[in-house]
Amino acid sequence: MSQVVDFNALAKSGIQRLRAYDPGHDLVALRREAVDGLTELGSNENSHGPSPKAIAAARSALDEVFRYPDPLGGDLKRALAKKHGVTTSQILLGNGSHELLMQFAQVFAGSGDEVVVSRHGFAVYALAVQAAGAKLVLSESLPPDAAMPLGHDLDAMANAITARTKLVYLANPNNPTGTWFDADAFDVFIKRVPANVIVIVDEAYAEYVDAPEWRSAIDWLPTHSNLIVTRTFSKAHALAGLRAGYALGHANAMAVMERVRESFNVNGPALAAAEASLLDEKHLKSNVDATRRERDVLSAALSARGWKVWPSQTNFLLVEFGPETANIEQQLLSHDVVLRPMAGYGLPHCLRITVGRADENVRLVAALDALKEKSHG
Amino acid sequence: MSQVVDFNALAKSGIQRLRAYDPGHDLVALRREAVDGLTELGSNENSHGPSPKAIAAARSALDEVFRYPDPLGGDLKRALAKKHGVTTSQILLGNGSHELLMQFAQVFAGSGDEVVVSRHGFAVYALAVQAAGAKLVLSESLPPDAAMPLGHDLDAMANAITARTKLVYLANPNNPTGTWFDADAFDVFIKRVPANVIVIVDEAYAEYVDAPEWRSAIDWLPTHSNLIVTRTFSKAHALAGLRAGYALGHANAMAVMERVRESFNVNGPALAAAEASLLDEKHLKSNVDATRRERDVLSAALSARGWKVWPSQTNFLLVEFGPETANIEQQLLSHDVVLRPMAGYGLPHCLRITVGRADENVRLVAALDALKEKSHG
Repeated sequence: MSQVVDFNALAKSGIQRLRAYDPGHDLVALRREAVDGLTELGSNENSHGPSPKAIAAARSALDEVFRYPDPLGGDLKRALAKKHGVTTSQILLGNGSHELLMQFAQVFAGSGDEVVVSRHGFAVYALAVQAAGAKLVLSESLPPDAAMPLGHDLDAMANAITARTKLVYLANPNNPTGTWFDADAFDVFIKRVPANVIVIVDEAYAEYVDAPEWRSAIDWLPTHSNLIVTRTFSKAHALAGLRAGYALGHANAMAVMERVRESFNVNGPALAAAEASLLDEKHLKSNVDATRRERDVLSAALSARGWKVWPSQTNFLLVEFGPETANIEQQLLSHDVVLRPMAGYGLPHCLRITVGRADENVRLVAALDALKEKSHG
Repeated sequence: MSQVVDFNALAKSGIQRLRAYDPGHDLVALRREAVDGLTELGSNENSHGPSPKAIAAARSALDEVFRYPDPLGGDLKRALAKKHGVTTSQILLGNGSHELLMQFAQVFAGSGDEVVVSRHGFAVYALAVQAAGAKLVLSESLPPDAAMPLGHDLDAMANAITARTKLVYLANPNNPTGTWFDADAFDVFIKRVPANVIVIVDEAYAEYVDAPEWRSAIDWLPTHSNLIVTRTFSKAHALAGLRAGYALGHANAMAVMERVRESFNVNGPALAAAEASLLDEKHLKSNVDATRRERDVLSAALSARGWKVWPSQTNFLLVEFGPETANIEQQLLSHDVVLRPMAGYGLPHCLRITVGRADENVRLVAALDALKEKSHG
């Protein structure tokens, strides 16, 4: 080869500075090395498992998998429209909500534009903004003495909006902090946002919420055309491996997004499973109830051992382990327990722990106790 | 709602002018209306069906579908590396090759940049260029008196490259024309392309080719770092519903692309099925052989009825029906036979016909004969 091109120099400026999303450890390799099974509590997966009806629907879709998936996603959209009280034209389907979060920036934000996100917001927002070549405007999180430390400071976010702002990304509840904001605060915020600034509220964990002061931003869609809400089937619906998510918003906004959506972005088994899962409300409820119960048990066990556990309305806990955090994370790995380090989020003293099944949570706590004994022994 | 935002005005300029890809008819609705089943020959699907081993692998992956898919796609990449004689770092996995074709433009072409495509090239190239906000440079196809009418004119495409050109999209064989170019012509072409212009060769239909003068562009990868080859599991592997495709290229190019790839872009069942399908070479061969046999039968049947059939190295035929084309297409629809209109490609007198199983092809020819009788009766 005579000359190797400098591909980075050929890429657009935003992408030249971009670093890929860090999905965590090589779990496939770790699974193969783990003698007695790997305890995977690093990716906020729902090991209580999907609806058997969803799996049956996916299996059935495999019988026709030589066909392209329905590019319109009509059946799933009709089920979603019914559930959320919107029209099908207000729904955009994604290969997980990750794809949609990326594409909103791709479509609406470019060079010279600003996008406001909270410092400890989900990492994909910053990636989306950089990939689009726009300017990331980081708003500080709520301070340690606030009622919701590390949570989104909605006042500060509204203040950060300028004439150049095209988008604002919010998460409610937020990953990785588990924090949330209440209906009154959002109402004040959305009324302050100019009509030509698009607000994306990522509600990936909405199904887990039972805080009475919380309300889905979907309730504000009829009065705010600049509002978009994203949801996923990867969390409470336990279908992360299939990749299905969606956005709800004004039909005109969705129509613009449809132009860049790849027609077959959601695969056939995912469309079928998502629809079936949506209709199996009983399974969803029992699954969410089990997660909440386990969350309380795990939170109490960790607090009792002296670690600071953040309040959570999700299927994970943010836990502060102090200066020994990186060491603890590594030692747990050698015990075949995987958690998610938070150094990339500027929280090096914290780990994010998925609430697993009872047996998984017990293994985690036992491994932590074994480390403690070893360090004291 | 006080004020509805003008979302089109808020979108980036390239997207303001964009029209979404037309995936054809609403097949789900047509299926429900068809009394005696729908004959679907409009989407170049492979109704000879996937490897049973691929389906078994996908089913097995559903057992763990509450987990995210492997973001590294390690197992599939290792199988692909072995098959193609490349390293895993030279492979990029996509949610179908459609996603990758879009993302190459997103990463490497923007405002002020030019991208060269052939007039009758696959529609997604033009979409990718417009979505990226770059300028589409259309090179005329080979003329009617050429050895390969409607085929890519590689000389003209090389001549169309300027200092502003960032990408060239080629398809070999091409969809929707079924045309292809030979190894010698490509060798001349790739040597003419400057090293800082990226050439993407879309080989979605490569497995169907048996023309001795054809060679995969993969053979030029070791000597041309600016070359990228895309492949799909949607055609010969018959896994269109699962969405899996890939690109092969220089490791440095793939590393830049990895920055915008969504970590979980390829779903779990797709990763598993694609790997299993790749290893089941016997199934692939018998499937491709069956398609070639049926292609010859169908091509002869259509030619015998006086229609012009383009030569094809794919699983479809481009057929010229003359001024009655739109009418024929509509009448076939009322007989529950779906073909793909070509007016969007500037070929209003042609239809694209997927080579189906023998029973499907027989139904198509019978329906055409019924139309002819009716028009003569």
